[in-house]
Amino acid sequence: MQFTPNENDLISDQEWSIETINKVLDLGADIKKIPQKYYTALDRKSICLYFFNPSLRTRNSFEVGINQMGGHGVFVDSKTSWLGQDSESVKDTAAVLSRYFDLIAIRMFPNAVDWVPEKSNELLREFAKWSRVPVINMEDDMFHPCQALADAFTIKERTGKFKGTKITITWAYHPKPLPMAVPNSALLIATRLGMDVTFARPDENFDLPDLIMETAKDNAKKSGGKLTIATDMKGGCDGADFVYLKSWGAKKFYGDAQAEKKLRMKYRGEDGTAWQLTPDKMAAAKPTGKFMHCLPVRRNVEVADAVIDDEQRSIVYDEAENRLHVQKAIMKVLAEKGIKKQGK
Amino acid sequence: MQFTPNENDLISDQEWSIETINKVLDLGADIKKIPQKYYTALDRKSICLYFFNPSLRTRNSFEVGINQMGGHGVFVDSKTSWLGQDSESVKDTAAVLSRYFDLIAIRMFPNAVDWVPEKSNELLREFAKWSRVPVINMEDDMFHPCQALADAFTIKERTGKFKGTKITITWAYHPKPLPMAVPNSALLIATRLGMDVTFARPDENFDLPDLIMETAKDNAKKSGGKLTIATDMKGGCDGADFVYLKSWGAKKFYGDAQAEKKLRMKYRGEDGTAWQLTPDKMAAAKPTGKFMHCLPVRRNVEVADAVIDDEQRSIVYDEAENRLHVQKAIMKVLAEKGIKKQGK
Amino acid sequence: MQFTPNENDLISDQEWSIETINKVLDLGADIKKIPQKYYTALDRKSICLYFFNPSLRTRNSFEVGINQMGGHGVFVDSKTSWLGQDSESVKDTAAVLSRYFDLIAIRMFPNAVDWVPEKSNELLREFAKWSRVPVINMEDDMFHPCQALADAFTIKERTGKFKGTKITITWAYHPKPLPMAVPNSALLIATRLGMDVTFARPDENFDLPDLIMETAKDNAKKSGGKLTIATDMKGGCDGADFVYLKSWGAKKFYGDAQAEKKLRMKYRGEDGTAWQLTPDKMAAAKPTGKFMHCLPVRRNVEVADAVIDDEQRSIVYDEAENRLHVQKAIMKVLAEKGIKKQGK
Repeated sequence: MQFTPNENDLISDQEWSIETINKVLDLGADIKKIPQKYYTALDRKSICLYFFNPSLRTRNSFEVGINQMGGHGVFVDSKTSWLGQDSESVKDTAAVLSRYFDLIAIRMFPNAVDWVPEKSNELLREFAKWSRVPVINMEDDMFHPCQALADAFTIKERTGKFKGTKITITWAYHPKPLPMAVPNSALLIATRLGMDVTFARPDENFDLPDLIMETAKDNAKKSGGKLTIATDMKGGCDGADFVYLKSWGAKKFYGDAQAEKKLRMKYRGEDGTAWQLTPDKMAAAKPTGKFMHCLPVRRNVEVADAVIDDEQRSIVYDEAENRLHVQKAIMKVLAEKGIKKQGK
Repeated sequence: MQFTPNENDLISDQEWSIETINKVLDLGADIKKIPQKYYTALDRKSICLYFFNPSLRTRNSFEVGINQMGGHGVFVDSKTSWLGQDSESVKDTAAVLSRYFDLIAIRMFPNAVDWVPEKSNELLREFAKWSRVPVINMEDDMFHPCQALADAFTIKERTGKFKGTKITITWAYHPKPLPMAVPNSALLIATRLGMDVTFARPDENFDLPDLIMETAKDNAKKSGGKLTIATDMKGGCDGADFVYLKSWGAKKFYGDAQAEKKLRMKYRGEDGTAWQLTPDKMAAAKPTGKFMHCLPVRRNVEVADAVIDDEQRSIVYDEAENRLHVQKAIMKVLAEKGIKKQGK
Repeated sequence: MQFTPNENDLISDQEWSIETINKVLDLGADIKKIPQKYYTALDRKSICLYFFNPSLRTRNSFEVGINQMGGHGVFVDSKTSWLGQDSESVKDTAAVLSRYFDLIAIRMFPNAVDWVPEKSNELLREFAKWSRVPVINMEDDMFHPCQALADAFTIKERTGKFKGTKITITWAYHPKPLPMAVPNSALLIATRLGMDVTFARPDENFDLPDLIMETAKDNAKKSGGKLTIATDMKGGCDGADFVYLKSWGAKKFYGDAQAEKKLRMKYRGEDGTAWQLTPDKMAAAKPTGKFMHCLPVRRNVEVADAVIDDEQRSIVYDEAENRLHVQKAIMKVLAEKGIKKQGK
């Protein structure tokens, strides 16, 4: 894949202009402040929420956001429907659903496509090609743009600006090799918005895909931001305004948990805290530095209770709540575009 | 079973008067043209959408249509509920649900009743008997009236009339013996509305159930239409305004895919196109002739891509979209009847 | 567990004041009479309906009630989400969901917690502790307060008063040892409201948990009601205004159906009617006496068709319908409390 500007859908925010990103962040802030202003923004509109994988935050924040703007979300579980199987082509599914819905949001994790690299992203793009209405990526195997925009919103809510704000995106130990959509999107948006980014992971095996690393470097150059690589969690947290914690799998073992295990265990450490965010590592951040995590999180594996439950440090519930406000803004902006293609 | 006039439910459109059918088609056209006029037609009303089988078009078109008229659809998956099992009688289920809902729509395929002939239709009728509110058949093992009414709507939208319009309802090869609800309903409504109908299938094994064939003949006589039988796909398509493609199982092997296989394979043909709608067969239709299919369709098995993707010929996405408009009309008409029986 | 007054949630109605119970019953009556008055009571509000077990009445009555008051219910099936598993803590789940929703209702049966006694009730209380918004128990392993309040509503609708009204809560034979939440809640509310209660069960093995039996006695003393124990179904029904039928498991075999079987079979009787509510047993009630059951019911196992289908006696469908009206009142009262805790 490659990044091509596309404002008709939200496949990745990297494909949106900075102007659109800022518009959504500003609109989200207004929606959070005065929700009543937007009570009819989706009046009589229907949004398809098509899930190939379980969800807590994403599904519920979308459903509630849609309702608060007067629209109707239809939760479609792939088990009670289908896509991209023998029985119905992606083209037909997309063409038909987009005759009914005003927006279509899709979640499809790597395990839904047997961990074939970039496969679910490809399916989403094909779906978007045949859909008459905007398509929103609710996390595929490459990107989680709704999370990234909510993260940016949460940072801006605290600091008012991105330039000069220091964020550490750091790997954590977790017993399973998790997908890379969240760290990919986090790294891209942080560099794009001009933040001073430290990317901390045990070794280069845990670098994100080349496309992401290269694009992030390029983003930082263009935005006037910085991208520094660290191989030590505590050192990486030094002076951070935000410590953004996430676990993910080593890319050369993509989809093969067994093969990756030895490498992963190496960074667990004897007492399990080598790459766990403990209070002493968090202490390396600024005294005002905040802890972020997209959730769900394994407590006392990825992060110590003492960090996530520290009400001065931890803003994870705000971060989760902001999904709601940002996604309302995303839906409003995309729904206003209306039908993007006729005659299909 | 037999057909008995019943306008309180929609079990089959054969049980509705022609006047009611025309009323629904006209109302559907107005709803399609000016949806805003009907924004409160289902205000505060709740519609139960009870599914024993997966669905893409039906479920989503109902949900969206309900929302567009200000109502609320509740998608009930039989896996998270039950009906007709040991634990709760059909009577109790129907009596209770109809205390809550304003309309109840049910889908129950033959596999949900172990392919016992007419069993799901029987269950729907029993449910309707105990329900205080109108029941809508979203496809059982005998009928798919919402599809049939959407098909009639799609034809009328193109031709303005049924009399003198030539439709070919033709069997297609498909690897599995599919249920007969769609062809049953298509044949009944086409003959009832006075169309010039050709019914094409390989041999009499693929005739529809006797009740359907006899009723269709009777329909044609009463309506001034025609019913011709063809045993050749291309010949059957000759001069057609509409080629209506569908696959179904041979009735004498009902529910026994293995036993039917040999017969089915015979009509696959060596290259798989004996009963596939290919461009050369479609060319037998009028130059303005249209291709219809209720979807989902196996591409390049039932129909060649060159036919379904021919934007001059193929109206399958319009047909799918019209489900929405017609079902809104059906719901409006039935919801206005209100509670049909008291005290149960 | 113990009962501690808590009006911020509805974990059990025993923890609500009599004033709140009466307020909800009166409000429910007004809602039933003039539903339009409450068409915007939940405007733009979202209610999470979180189910770990199947449901017919509960889920649908909640969804419809929410819609009738202008709100939006989100049905969350635990299979498409999670709670209390390794992957996410109860605290995080409750904290996040309560950032989105205005009310959170949960159903969790004993089998969802491997029949560990009181475990699901404990989880609900932990969830409520971390939730910013009110939590409603839609039946756990201890209580079914929505059913109990609907039962009280149904009785009051017929008699206008509780004092002096005779209710027989009687065990029935059923092939499986069912949970005790319904009889627990029925016994508590009947004694609390001052009714003349007969509790009929084959022997002391079928007494409810000690906490329930003791609290019920105490309730009766405080309310001026009565609590009598009977060991014979027919005798227990003597002079009853209401016969409230329910089956449940023997507590000493809790969660072990196999071990309980012998005891259970003993009370089945040779022809299966020893503890079945047959017309001759129902005849012991007052001539105006009514039959109640929360449903679902095994017909001709727990109760004879001749009783449940007797339109003079049976008020089971009214009882089911009243779930709708009472739950609307419960939601309105709790939603008006708004956010109960800040900063979590």
